[in-house]
Order: sequence, then C-alpha cells, then structure tokens
Amino acid sequence: MALKASRRGRVPPFIVMDVMRDAAALEAAGRKIIHLEVGQPSTGIPRVAAARLAPLIERDALGYTVADGTMVLRERIARHYFETYGATVAPSQIFVTTGSSAGFLLSFLSAFDAGERVALAAPGYPAYRHILSSLDVEPVLIPTGADTRFQVSVAHLDAMRQDRGGLPDGLIVASPANPTGTMIPEDEFRSLVAYCHEHDIRLISDEIYHGITFGPRAVTAAGLSPSVIVINSFSKYFSMTGWRVGWAVVPDDLYRSMECLAQNHFISPPTLSQWGALYAFDGMEELNANVERYARNRLTLLEALPKLGFADLAPADGAFYIYADISRFKEDAATFCRRVLHDAGVAITPGIDFDPYRGDKFVRFSFAVSEKDVAEALVRLGELGLPSNRD
Amino acid sequence: MALKASRRGRVPPFIVMDVMRDAAALEAAGRKIIHLEVGQPSTGIPRVAAARLAPLIERDALGYTVADGTMVLRERIARHYFETYGATVAPSQIFVTTGSSAGFLLSFLSAFDAGERVALAAPGYPAYRHILSSLDVEPVLIPTGADTRFQVSVAHLDAMRQDRGGLPDGLIVASPANPTGTMIPEDEFRSLVAYCHEHDIRLISDEIYHGITFGPRAVTAAGLSPSVIVINSFSKYFSMTGWRVGWAVVPDDLYRSMECLAQNHFISPPTLSQWGALYAFDGMEELNANVERYARNRLTLLEALPKLGFADLAPADGAFYIYADISRFKEDAATFCRRVLHDAGVAITPGIDFDPYRGDKFVRFSFAVSEKDVAEALVRLGELGLPSNRD
Repeated sequence: MALKASRRGRVPPFIVMDVMRDAAALEAAGRKIIHLEVGQPSTGIPRVAAARLAPLIERDALGYTVADGTMVLRERIARHYFETYGATVAPSQIFVTTGSSAGFLLSFLSAFDAGERVALAAPGYPAYRHILSSLDVEPVLIPTGADTRFQVSVAHLDAMRQDRGGLPDGLIVASPANPTGTMIPEDEFRSLVAYCHEHDIRLISDEIYHGITFGPRAVTAAGLSPSVIVINSFSKYFSMTGWRVGWAVVPDDLYRSMECLAQNHFISPPTLSQWGALYAFDGMEELNANVERYARNRLTLLEALPKLGFADLAPADGAFYIYADISRFKEDAATFCRRVLHDAGVAITPGIDFDPYRGDKFVRFSFAVSEKDVAEALVRLGELGLPSNRD
Repeated sequence: MALKASRRGRVPPFIVMDVMRDAAALEAAGRKIIHLEVGQPSTGIPRVAAARLAPLIERDALGYTVADGTMVLRERIARHYFETYGATVAPSQIFVTTGSSAGFLLSFLSAFDAGERVALAAPGYPAYRHILSSLDVEPVLIPTGADTRFQVSVAHLDAMRQDRGGLPDGLIVASPANPTGTMIPEDEFRSLVAYCHEHDIRLISDEIYHGITFGPRAVTAAGLSPSVIVINSFSKYFSMTGWRVGWAVVPDDLYRSMECLAQNHFISPPTLSQWGALYAFDGMEELNANVERYARNRLTLLEALPKLGFADLAPADGAFYIYADISRFKEDAATFCRRVLHDAGVAITPGIDFDPYRGDKFVRFSFAVSEKDVAEALVRLGELGLPSNRD
C-alpha cells in the first residue's frame, strides 16, 4: 500500500480559473483582454475606509480578535439590519467570518452530520456543493429553469417529499443568485422560509448579493424564522473581496457550536479586514455609485446582447451577472468561451461550473466592471459575427 | 422532531478564552493585568512592511488572488527554505494559506477520509484534535511526558503497531511544540519522518514556531520525504497573527486536491496579508530582535519560576512558552489559574486545553511580551506566597 489521497478531497476545480489562466496567458503575450468572467467588483474598499486603515497598520499590533469578531463590528452589522430592512437583529446573533466561505464551512459543520442531505438549485454557486461533499454531506441538486427564475420553490420541496430520499436536512437558497442574478419574489421567499422551519429543514440563506438589486429590494431571512442561518459578506456590495471578511446571522441553537468550531478552524477573521469592514459602512455613497454603474452596465447588456444573438437571458434581478442560454449557437459552453476569448479577447464563464447538468448550454457575463469595458466588449462580440436573431 | 445541531459540531471551546474573558472583566473594573496567557507576540508586523502596505490599500483594488497565493510570495517562501535550512523547495510546492488554520483544514481534507485515524501528542495544540473530529477523523492522543520531551517518538508508533487499532493513517508533530516549547532532537526527527514514509503514515509537521529557538535550530521536514506535509505561518516568528496568512509545503500527490479544496473553501488567502507577508521578509532585523527579547524573557523565567515553587518545567527549547507541572500545589490548574489571575493579576493558561488527561496538573506561561511585563509578573507571583522549593 502506498500513501493515498482522500476520496473526499477529489472536488472539481473551478472552470472559471481555467478561463482566467488562458486570459492571463493572452495578456502576457500582449493582448488586451476584457474581463467579464470574474465574480468580483473591479473596484476596491471605499476610499474613506482605506484612509482610516493606513495609520492603523503602523499603530496597532493587529493581533487575534475573538473568534466571532469584534463587538463594535457586530453591533454595526446589527444596526445595518435595522437601517436596511427595518429588521431587529441582536449583535449577539451576528457572527463575523473569514468571508462567506467560512460562513459556509462553519454553518455546515454546526448543522449537518456526515450522510445528511442538503438541497440546492442547479445552476448555483459551485462551492456550495463542493464544500458539502468534502464534509461528507450529500448535495441534492434541484434542476431549475426559467419557469421558477432558476430558484428552488416550495413546489420543488413538496415534490421531494414523495421521492425516495424524502425531504432534505437542509436547503441553500441565494436571492439574488449566482450565476443567474435572479431573485425569489418576496411572498415566495417568505413561504419557503416558513415551509423549511415547519418541516425541520435547516435553511441557509446566502445573501451575499444583497444591496445589488435593480428592481424590488431583497428580503432578508434574518428574523423570519428562529432556525434560519443567513450568510453574508463584505465582498460584493462593500467591494472588499480580497479582504476575506463576511458575517452570518446565527440562530441561538447553533451559535455556541459555531463559536467553538471557529476558535479551532480559524482562530479569528483577519483583524485589519474587520476594521476595514467597520469603516466601509461610512463609504456607502461610493458603494451606491458602484451599484448605479452596475445598473447602467446591466441595461446596456440587456439591450445589446439579444441583438448579438444571445436571445435567451435569465431575468437579471440583482447581483452583477447575466446568465445566457447559448444552445442556439450549437457549441458547448467551454468551446464557445474559449473561442470568444481567443477571437474577441473577451473573457466570459461557461455555465458548467454552476450546473453539471445543463451548464454546457449557458454562459455567464459579469458586469461589475467599468462602462468602458462593457462597451468595448460589445464591440468585440459584434465583430465575432455570431448568428443573430435576425439571421 | 425539531431542528437539531450536528454531533460533530460539538467541539470543546478553548479554555484560554475563559481566562481572557475573566482578565478582560478585571481590566474593565480597573485592574492592571499582565497577559502571559495568549499565544501570540505582543508586537505587530515589521515596521518596514507596515510602511509599504499603507499606500497599497489606497492604490490597489485588492481583489481575490489565485487559491494557492501569489507566485511572488510562493517564490519568496521557497527562497526562505534555501536561506534558512539550505533546503531546495520548489515554489510549485508552496501553498499560501489563510493562517496555519487553513493549512490544517486543507491538508486534513485532502489526506484523510472520515473514519481514519491520526495520532498526535498530548499535550498539544488543541485545534489539531478538534478540527480532526469535526471532520469525522479520529484523533488518537498519545500521552507523552518529560521522558520524550512531551513528543511522539518512533517507539510510540512501534507500540501502536501491536495495538488493537494498529498504526495510524496520519501523525501530527510540532517541534518546537505548543504548549511545551520542546523540540524533537534532529536524529529522532529524521527517524520519525523516515518511519512514517515507510509505514504509509501521512506525516504533518507543524513548523509554526520555527525561527524561535534557543539552542539547536529546528529541522524542517520539507524535502525529507516525498509524502510529508509541512504547515507554517506568518503568525509567530513574523509577528502577524491577526493577518491570517501562512503556508504549507505540499507533496505532489496532494497539491491539486488542496488547490481545488481551497478554491471552494477559501477562494484565496487575504490579499493584503499576502503582500504584508512578502514585505515582512525584509523586516528580519526587527523580527530577530523580538526573538532575542523572548530569549531574555525565557532565561529570566527559567531562573525565577523554580524559586517561586514552579519546580518542574518542560525544557523550553523553542516557541515562547514554559509548561510547568503544578501538581505540588495540590490545586487543579483551572482553579490555580483563576486564583493567580484574581489575586496576582497575572493571566496564565491551564493545561486542560492541551491535554485532556493530565492537563489539570500543568499551566502554560507565554513570554512573547515585554521584559517589563515579565519582571512585573514575577514580582506579583512572588507576592502570592506559593509554597516554594525551600518550604
């Protein structure tokens, strides 16, 4: 017997990383690439926050904090719930995490044992199912389509009751979602939260794209049931991806378990990032201007993409993505994205990261970039001469 | 049935956190507390690094990096192996992580499946066993004593071969160790690495206290066998605890698995922290001065503690800890530490975090503080009137 690797460590890579590597190679060779593949803002932390962090680095030892984050940040996040949603969330329920990534690990570990089943929509953020499977929790993918805005509904869960497997132990939803940008309408969202609580399904509401919506504002699950876990982050609206700081709203029955897990798994979230997050709340003017730019980019793309042949777009309710059905181009998504990258110098993401079933027929455009980049991308896509609607 | 928490989420808290909370309460009430309980330097990132980070915050968007860290940092760490140990480690083997904590999660997930067994010394860093058990890997504690410098030896493993359970799937060692500061002599360390490779035991060498040694320098396991995983961090020698950045040296057969796991579990280590780590290599003069201060503190304590009644100290070869047997005080460690905190205003850590078997007879002193604090702590401990050796 030789030393072996684990079975559960065999999770698939992010395909978007391959796109990024190819794009970097073309750039190294002198090409100018427009990056519509990356799920992050092209901007940084608000300037007002940056200015306050610089002196802190020189002045403070920046040691560990407690595992669930500084109280001043937890209090500020709690206030955010009142200001944004009119919701009362106690600071004692707020758990600061090392990005939403840590929120997933900690909440999955505290809520689910090996062998349990957690349902989630396909398409969806791929890390959900890969983190689950690496922890020996079974991800149960629910194929969703345009009929339910690519979201899980109560009807999906009711159908599972009749299934062999029965209702799952947990459910992950995201509204707005990645990669589709679609949202669950408010009444359906409330029904889903109530259904999960009634049927002992631990609901995890990923609210990382809250604050970036283009019609009705997103509803938070925080406070809607005593069992729901909310995951959020400073990465998207707050434009702080590389700082790796986020938060969870944690029900009472899981808080102590998550705290002990976090002490062991993380010690504490990055200290300077916690201060940056606190100060970022004072930069909302700048952050809202980012969202206005996303809104303009979205309109530009929604108008232009169908004329270029991308006829079938998911409703881009929020986040900074447009998820396009490309089946009419008769090319699988990976091949199509490679061709668009090489021929047009525009990087976009094939759907296969997000949906193992039908992702090869979809691509994702990210519009968290400058308006200039969006305009240039559209010119280049036009020059590709894709079969348009009028062909 | 009501919604439940998981079984594996029931990991014990760090007891040192209770000490810190009590100490904070006393400070809030106006007491001056000397902190010898915390396992981190009282200093921050080297000044030269701090100065270079400040402009970066204002200039750079600081987005995600690739999951295993920037190549410029990986190359610098590889060079560190040559400069420090004369060892050749390729940048392609260096994996930048979100502190050593992430190194443990990723290496445990990539190497071990649920139900496998990993051996480790008691006393030891408590997160090892708690991370393992939360991942359904069985920690097999090997009680160690002064006879083997509180370290696991080949003889311990050989004894396990005869046991019911047989040899373990993995072994974690740390030299210097937390909480004892003891090191494995070089020839024994080399034997242990060879034994593990021969017997298909995945060895994880936690080298987080390298660079802080007071006699022979520590030997790295990197390059000593093709199967060993090395975990390290910028938290201790580099004095960057709250930045949450570390690294692993990863064998070829696990690298891709760890990369895919990291993409999903972490996305990437904190970006600014990666730059800070890179720049910290230019601050070694300051860092070495920290170590010289630890060396003076260590000598002061090794001379003074026995006179105060702490007669039985583990050999403090490295790290910034002294592990003292307090059984002669006829008080369990938690009670003793509480009394020392309340009566003398000195915070120290009971051994129970580190050793569930005999930890109630030990306490840990951390000396990563100023010389003034050490002197003041000794005065206060003297005033306690503990039964000294001469009583």
